[in-house]
Amino acid sequence: MTTEVKPSSRERLLEAAAALTYSEGVNIGIEALCKAAGVSKRSMYQLFTSKDDLLAASLERHAVAYVAGLLPAPDEGRTPRERILHVFERVESQSVEPEFHGCRYLSAQIELKDQAHPASRVAHRVKSELTGYFRAEAEQGGAADPDLLARRLMLVFDGASARAGIGVEDLAGFLAPTVAVLLDTAGMR
Amino acid sequence: MTTEVKPSSRERLLEAAAALTYSEGVNIGIEALCKAAGVSKRSMYQLFTSKDDLLAASLERHAVAYVAGLLPAPDEGRTPRERILHVFERVESQSVEPEFHGCRYLSAQIELKDQAHPASRVAHRVKSELTGYFRAEAEQGGAADPDLLARRLMLVFDGASARAGIGVEDLAGFLAPTVAVLLDTAGMR
Repeated sequence: MTTEVKPSSRERLLEAAAALTYSEGVNIGIEALCKAAGVSKRSMYQLFTSKDDLLAASLERHAVAYVAGLLPAPDEGRTPRERILHVFERVESQSVEPEFHGCRYLSAQIELKDQAHPASRVAHRVKSELTGYFRAEAEQGGAADPDLLARRLMLVFDGASARAGIGVEDLAGFLAPTVAVLLDTAGMR
Repeated sequence: MTTEVKPSSRERLLEAAAALTYSEGVNIGIEALCKAAGVSKRSMYQLFTSKDDLLAASLERHAVAYVAGLLPAPDEGRTPRERILHVFERVESQSVEPEFHGCRYLSAQIELKDQAHPASRVAHRVKSELTGYFRAEAEQGGAADPDLLARRLMLVFDGASARAGIGVEDLAGFLAPTVAVLLDTAGMR
């Protein structure tokens, strides 16, 4: 029994929450989370005020890896069009990994069904940053209507993540060309 | 206490499962389902072998209303392009209803995270029928690649349902024009 709160308990809980909510869903029980983390429930409640708080913190913490996994490095000399397509090429690559279940932020919001939930708020913010990235690149690349293009790209991003996540779509060689149609239409050559 | 299995108990359970899994998620408890249906757990287990079975049957039963809510009536003199756009105009309309939480079949598959689950199989089949509808209309309308267009339309369909369902996108006046871009590109005038 772990009764003292060690520095690593928080990390282990965040990792377990990230892994298990992604593979099992946000309704995973506190017992399962604590067991996977090797942390007692008592310790968990010393670190987080609630499971909701733990879930929000784990989504928050995962955002850096999420963004790094999708966006190109700055200063790579890519055009805005290429920088947008890069994101979708990354989704194509990620979607063939055996543990891929789609975008964790979309799934969390769908599963929680409560947009005021602290974890939904985190998910909403992380995805808004992605929309902002698309919008900025669209503007930089001279898109006719950067807002409209960014919204369309998010529609395709979430549709692709969701459909590949449930195993009904094979994105390889399909997603990027579909996005290219939207970029062409917006005048982003 | 209802101890006899009345013909209406099955209907009430199917209705309660359809309503509550849509608003609360597939992890809704059996107690809550039985309470909402006004049916005892004993009766439920006389009608359905498991909650999974009840969930699958409720998704199955809802498929008729789902399809009727999206597809145009036959023999309305619409072109294939109009018949495809009709579906997305229906999603635009449905998405502004206060109880809209996106496509129930997509949500069920995302939440269950198990494509072998009987309810996931039902959801998969219902959505495959929608893909088949798009494909048939695309072919009828002379699309360059009906399969590709149908897949693209499903990507947008699920992305739109998901994003409107979590309240981050307003589809009105946005979705149908986005779909029109894909129809134009496929040569469906």
